[in-house]
Amino acid sequence: MSKVLNPTEIEQALAGLPGWARESDALVKTYEFASFREAMSFMVRAGFEAEAMNHHPEWTNVYDTVAVRLTTHHAGNKITASDVELAQRLQKISWVG
Amino acid sequence: MSKVLNPTEIEQALAGLPGWARESDALVKTYEFASFREAMSFMVRAGFEAEAMNHHPEWTNVYDTVAVRLTTHHAGNKITASDVELAQRLQKISWVG
Amino acid sequence: MSKVLNPTEIEQALAGLPGWARESDALVKTYEFASFREAMSFMVRAGFEAEAMNHHPEWTNVYDTVAVRLTTHHAGNKITASDVELAQRLQKISWVG
Amino acid sequence: MSKVLNPTEIEQALAGLPGWARESDALVKTYEFASFREAMSFMVRAGFEAEAMNHHPEWTNVYDTVAVRLTTHHAGNKITASDVELAQRLQKISWVG
Repeated sequence: MSKVLNPTEIEQALAGLPGWARESDALVKTYEFASFREAMSFMVRAGFEAEAMNHHPEWTNVYDTVAVRLTTHHAGNKITASDVELAQRLQKISWVG
Repeated sequence: MSKVLNPTEIEQALAGLPGWARESDALVKTYEFASFREAMSFMVRAGFEAEAMNHHPEWTNVYDTVAVRLTTHHAGNKITASDVELAQRLQKISWVG
Repeated sequence: MSKVLNPTEIEQALAGLPGWARESDALVKTYEFASFREAMSFMVRAGFEAEAMNHHPEWTNVYDTVAVRLTTHHAGNKITASDVELAQRLQKISWVG
Repeated sequence: MSKVLNPTEIEQALAGLPGWARESDALVKTYEFASFREAMSFMVRAGFEAEAMNHHPEWTNVYDTVAVRLTTHHAGNKITASDVELAQRLQKISWVG
């Protein structure tokens, strides 16, 4: 079971995650891409990370944007270390601005 | 510019679109798949239809579900013939239950 | 390390894999789809299986076909149990004809 | 019908296409990515360009590489302006090294 983070731990994690914010009990970021095509490719690329972690985002695509929301259902919809790790993995995707 | 549909036309279109409903000024359907992997593959498959029409959905993926919302921004967020056509194309994807 | 299969074991595996054949030290099948769009969606869907197994195909896409070739590099390019498992997983993708 | 290019025109086109070469009657390039995941995302991204042009590559993926071969079937398997344009589009994908 992934560890539920306390507010201080969440603050510390966000310091290393540009563009990410806390919204209630979730980590959120809206990515903007150059096109729908890039948005879809990002979702495929990111989907592989989600599958590898067996931890999946709630995300909404509208044309060239992808709004990502990370929370841990199995932890009672709290922010856990898994959410931070998935956010970090998304940030490391080389071609994401 | 795609034609804005009146309520009767929307009703008629929905009659041929199993699982789709009207929600305010949008056509909506939530697809449930066997896995996140299938959900992602559906989005890629459907994404090609959206690009071919240059008409894109608002859609949210959570694990094995994809909630699709179709409305036409350029027509003042009304339901148009393009929304019906995209819904029809999604229904024709052979492996969608 | 995945087990290298002997000719009898390969024969037995192929009996349960419609459309698959042995070609030298590989299992091969050419999938034909209705369109390039379906072929690409299949590759994404199948790609998730490959990643989950950490065992990847050699595959070639030309328009609506995907020619898959499975062999195990780490076993000296022999057919192993991993190749059979990946072939079985591809066959189980619900929408593959 | 896309214009068949003469050797001089092919040379000129290749001058602006780093990593691409002529191989008989095709333009070829092998892309190397950081992972299978990136290779697959590239294929999705590039697949949208192919669909938009209705001109498709012959391409082979092996783990983190994608070997692309462009020729025009409808022109008797010659190199045409469409092959050059697709190569240019692939080069413009922002995150392709």
